Amino acid sequence: MTIRPIALDAMGGDHAPSATVDGACRAVKGGIAVVLVGDEAVLRQHIPKGVEIEIIHAAEAVGMDEAPSAAVRSKKDASVRVAARTVAEGNASALVSFGNTGALMAASLMELGRIDGVERPAVIATLPRRDGGQVVILDLGANVDCKPSHLAQFGVMGSVFAQDVLGLENPRVGILSNGEEEGKGNEQVRAALPVLGQMPINFIGPIEPADALYGGCEVVVCDGFVGNVMLKSVEASIAIAGKVLREEILRRPGAKIGAKLLAGAFRRYRNRTSAGAVGGAFLLGVKGTVLVGHGRADAKAVHAAIKRAHSAVQQDLTKHIGSAISTALAAVGETDT
Amino acid sequence: MTIRPIALDAMGGDHAPSATVDGACRAVKGGIAVVLVGDEAVLRQHIPKGVEIEIIHAAEAVGMDEAPSAAVRSKKDASVRVAARTVAEGNASALVSFGNTGALMAASLMELGRIDGVERPAVIATLPRRDGGQVVILDLGANVDCKPSHLAQFGVMGSVFAQDVLGLENPRVGILSNGEEEGKGNEQVRAALPVLGQMPINFIGPIEPADALYGGCEVVVCDGFVGNVMLKSVEASIAIAGKVLREEILRRPGAKIGAKLLAGAFRRYRNRTSAGAVGGAFLLGVKGTVLVGHGRADAKAVHAAIKRAHSAVQQDLTKHIGSAISTALAAVGETDT
Repeated sequence: MTIRPIALDAMGGDHAPSATVDGACRAVKGGIAVVLVGDEAVLRQHIPKGVEIEIIHAAEAVGMDEAPSAAVRSKKDASVRVAARTVAEGNASALVSFGNTGALMAASLMELGRIDGVERPAVIATLPRRDGGQVVILDLGANVDCKPSHLAQFGVMGSVFAQDVLGLENPRVGILSNGEEEGKGNEQVRAALPVLGQMPINFIGPIEPADALYGGCEVVVCDGFVGNVMLKSVEASIAIAGKVLREEILRRPGAKIGAKLLAGAFRRYRNRTSAGAVGGAFLLGVKGTVLVGHGRADAKAVHAAIKRAHSAVQQDLTKHIGSAISTALAAVGETDT
Repeated sequence: MTIRPIALDAMGGDHAPSATVDGACRAVKGGIAVVLVGDEAVLRQHIPKGVEIEIIHAAEAVGMDEAPSAAVRSKKDASVRVAARTVAEGNASALVSFGNTGALMAASLMELGRIDGVERPAVIATLPRRDGGQVVILDLGANVDCKPSHLAQFGVMGSVFAQDVLGLENPRVGILSNGEEEGKGNEQVRAALPVLGQMPINFIGPIEPADALYGGCEVVVCDGFVGNVMLKSVEASIAIAGKVLREEILRRPGAKIGAKLLAGAFRRYRNRTSAGAVGGAFLLGVKGTVLVGHGRADAKAVHAAIKRAHSAVQQDLTKHIGSAISTALAAVGETDT
């Protein structure tokens, strides 16, 4: 398989374009081809001498404060949209952006379109599990109100993602709920249970947040509102927990030396628990690999995201999702007749 | 104000009746009158000599594995129901139980009934904030599907709770959402915004989980499904974070001594971050003070819960909620005409 370059929306992100260009140069040095999309004159200034990196000029950009869909629709030459178009035209293999998430989704839908049979593309990321593993969770905000069929498709796409990107065999898929007993769950969860049960995945039924974080499944399915609340609650709690513990350790007299000795432990703690942010989230269900990076990404995080997108392309993630969705639809069709 | 004894469902909880009776005896020694409700012969065996504590006999109990509503309806002499009846008849001032939460809610609704004007009673607890304060969150599971008017009433009840129980003046009330910008939130949140805006409370609009945990408000309103997901996600993340950090500290050679020195820091960390569990949650909106204790409670936690219920009675929480709800209904009525 020939892998075309990764199209990077070089204008998006809090530290763009310096962090995006720097991260792209690191990826190029590591052997991954990248094409920068953005204001050519500006980007040229950030590329160090001796680094060969292609630029596709895009005259406009979408700001963080703009209404994303409207901005992307009206700005045909916005960097995120040009980058998506480059993938759609077959000149790049994946789209990576650290800018406005809504704009990235809108550009992906407009330029790439949905995979056949996918009703709603979804944002997916991982959370750190107690056992050192990862649990995949989707949707994280693209769809705040979901039908049972949307959640069932999230289960299929999440299962493929866990296999391709995390290398897990036969991943267990649960639907996020407030209890695992019969009668628990809200209307949405209870309506989705039988539909998820028909999917050709390893569906284990409802799962509570703690059970998922303690290793009870590999894929958590939920609507984007609930998923966003869980993701943000976990991320904030982990950050706050680290800060509070550091403060409490420093409260002991003469504890500063101890705290220095503990710096490594805190660093390893952050590495083990920052899975949600490392390398960013993916938008699944569109015709192309799309990585939604964190706005705060520095050059190192940009580099990690490019590597992650490249790896998903190597795994043929998008094609596998397409096959899995059509198999799932056929399975439901058979059951119905 | 004469405070009648606290009615304790002595048969409920993982460590009942030894932990419940022991906790009640501690409260009695501390000057709080308690009446134990349960199997008199069994309870007598757990009361140490010299401790004077009243017992009301209840021949039955609701198990953790029973369908709560049906069990409470059919068992008129279940301990939780007898305890609720004791409050309803004016012979106790509050109901405390560590048993099946659903059974406690059913018993409260059957025996105490709802406060006039309250559409849906709600479960409320607190989460630890980064700044050392607490943020109140409701509902936590009593109502998994909510209308805008339910959420508006949760805002009113939560505001009264923050004032009476946490002693906060003019608490800021936010509605949990996946973003604070216009257009964010799911259908439920967007429909509830204008109704919450009409309530006579300090409503600040949508709030994200991280902003709430970092001190952006004192009261978070949400449906019981989302609230349960946030509560459980925060509790599990805090517990996991502590365990992971301890492991990483122990990975250094000769770190065991350091870990011993850090025991105090970890204990203070748990104290600062275990707000959700300490003393339990309250069921607001029924005609009486009802405390929903954690099933795992030991004698110390039982004692803390009894003190917390006693304090809420002293503050006249139930009466204040009744006044606030009728004021709120009047305010909406005025706006409507």
